[in-house]
Amino acid sequence: MKSVADVAGITREELQLAARNHGMPLEALRYDVTPPGLHYLLIHYDIPQIDADAWRLRVGGLITRPLELSLSDLRQRTTVTRAVTLECAGNGRALLEPRPLSQPWLLEAVGTAEWTGVPLRDVLEEAGVEPGAAELVFTGLDRGVEGEIEQAYERSLSIDESMREDVLLAFAMNGQALPPQHGAPLRLIVPGWYGMTSVKWLSRITAVGEEFGGYQMATSYRFRSDPDEVGEAVTRIRPRSLMIPPGIPEFLTRSRVLDAGTHTLVGRAWSGLGAIERVEFSQDDGATWSDARLHPPHRDASAWRGWSSEWAASAGERVLCCRATDSTGAMQPLEASWNVGGYANNAVQRVPVLVR
Amino acid sequence: MKSVADVAGITREELQLAARNHGMPLEALRYDVTPPGLHYLLIHYDIPQIDADAWRLRVGGLITRPLELSLSDLRQRTTVTRAVTLECAGNGRALLEPRPLSQPWLLEAVGTAEWTGVPLRDVLEEAGVEPGAAELVFTGLDRGVEGEIEQAYERSLSIDESMREDVLLAFAMNGQALPPQHGAPLRLIVPGWYGMTSVKWLSRITAVGEEFGGYQMATSYRFRSDPDEVGEAVTRIRPRSLMIPPGIPEFLTRSRVLDAGTHTLVGRAWSGLGAIERVEFSQDDGATWSDARLHPPHRDASAWRGWSSEWAASAGERVLCCRATDSTGAMQPLEASWNVGGYANNAVQRVPVLVR
Repeated sequence: MKSVADVAGITREELQLAARNHGMPLEALRYDVTPPGLHYLLIHYDIPQIDADAWRLRVGGLITRPLELSLSDLRQRTTVTRAVTLECAGNGRALLEPRPLSQPWLLEAVGTAEWTGVPLRDVLEEAGVEPGAAELVFTGLDRGVEGEIEQAYERSLSIDESMREDVLLAFAMNGQALPPQHGAPLRLIVPGWYGMTSVKWLSRITAVGEEFGGYQMATSYRFRSDPDEVGEAVTRIRPRSLMIPPGIPEFLTRSRVLDAGTHTLVGRAWSGLGAIERVEFSQDDGATWSDARLHPPHRDASAWRGWSSEWAASAGERVLCCRATDSTGAMQPLEASWNVGGYANNAVQRVPVLVR
Repeated sequence: MKSVADVAGITREELQLAARNHGMPLEALRYDVTPPGLHYLLIHYDIPQIDADAWRLRVGGLITRPLELSLSDLRQRTTVTRAVTLECAGNGRALLEPRPLSQPWLLEAVGTAEWTGVPLRDVLEEAGVEPGAAELVFTGLDRGVEGEIEQAYERSLSIDESMREDVLLAFAMNGQALPPQHGAPLRLIVPGWYGMTSVKWLSRITAVGEEFGGYQMATSYRFRSDPDEVGEAVTRIRPRSLMIPPGIPEFLTRSRVLDAGTHTLVGRAWSGLGAIERVEFSQDDGATWSDARLHPPHRDASAWRGWSSEWAASAGERVLCCRATDSTGAMQPLEASWNVGGYANNAVQRVPVLVR
């Protein structure tokens, strides 16, 4: 198992990304719904400047009745609010060795918000997806250069996944208007999938007849052991559990100290593959494990699940770990499996502490 | 002038800090008031967990009528809302060489919010500061270890500065309840001073008879050219201007491209020493300068001031710069002056762009 102690030599490019993208400080795991401003944030290019009054969502391509919807058109439809845990596909990347060069997340690229919007399915049913359509392409208004290609951020999703009842076109977050950095005026929310799928600053939905080969599908966000491989697509969130690091931190090193005695360790666990069925706790760097107590599941299966564990801490240095298993049997590994892009590293969290 | 191109070899400790503290992406300079969640955030230790109902502000020490105030006591008083630009004293630290080890800010540790609260002066006048009092000590509920000393975050301020009419005890930010990460339920706001002065999670104000020698006053936040010096205290914000980087970014390098033609460059400038009187723009890495247009000042002198500059961009590589001068004659330097803690580096921003 790797800890942050093994990370070194972050480059200037990585620092620039870390300075503008926001992690969720892990003590914010205490909140069932992440307060605004503590949710993780990965902005591929720049936050675009959008006139919400002039903005329209266009639904076209292999569509029977193409639509052009204003924000107020969307607000007047039947809306749904759903708590969804989103995690960046790059979470854990900076703990891989060698470290893939991109946003250098440690473990903090996660958050849970209450998203309010219109079910995508309702809009698609009104528009009518033609039988020849294979996928929907979701296009954002954010533009940049990546892999030497100038592009708008675009991702596709199969018709089946798009027609799931829990996929939203969201215009509000935690009961407030969607903030600019989270995709205002409208973003796609695809529960269970890594965050790159939940396209922000959404402007177009296009039904296409074959697999979409855009950069974020064919080049980025694929599991590859070698850059020349085609690789498998990164899709659903692998199981992960995180704990609130106990005790108090040292400012620079973030190393933790706490007093001997009984402590209640608290954390959250989630998986996009299935329901969380088990969380285990270890005080000896994963040598031995005991079951944590799972808190009641959230009303929305798309939200993380709380857990806690009593811990009788005796003096000395300890490495605390937690490990989640979901209903498909998927369990967090002790060691990360490396890939070129540094995606989906869900190896168990390690929290070194000094008990005094 | 240093640019981010010269930064390298960030350590794991710096990365951990960068992953939990939040910068304001510079395109957010477009907002007069920074949207919630885009304001910079420097959390010394952990965000503490506080029961707002049980919380009290205690005002004591060399005080005639010690007070214990609940949040509702404070809310029932005369309140004021003021736009204040806050900047971290460490902004620009990662551009120093050698780079002081701490939170590795490039240029994004700034934000402007509308803070609502009670003037500190009103509370002090009710409590009665005794003639022997020299300073007020502001104690937060956040605890950690720094310089091998376990401590609550504490800073002091002279009675004169504390009695300024614009110093607030703030319980709301941008018209909403103060978020946990910005100091809920109550934080001090000291306009014009670097952010370390605006103590978050405030629990105690103590009038003391002599200069307070706590860690954040005597050890941290001092200008030193050698670690053994006593050094001068870091106090007010030096002038700085920043521009929204024009064009579109490359994902990893954040390098910018834009088309030849006329562009309007837009930014903000601020100083805690005096009013912004001039902003200049350079397209040739500071070799030649022209005056930018200053936008009307904000109603509140404590808020940043907008500026813009027309730029006729011809094809080629350019390094764009901006430079502010305030009413005291203080001007941003082209080269940073180094200090041990990496404080107050207000050297001009450099934005390399490719015009095509």
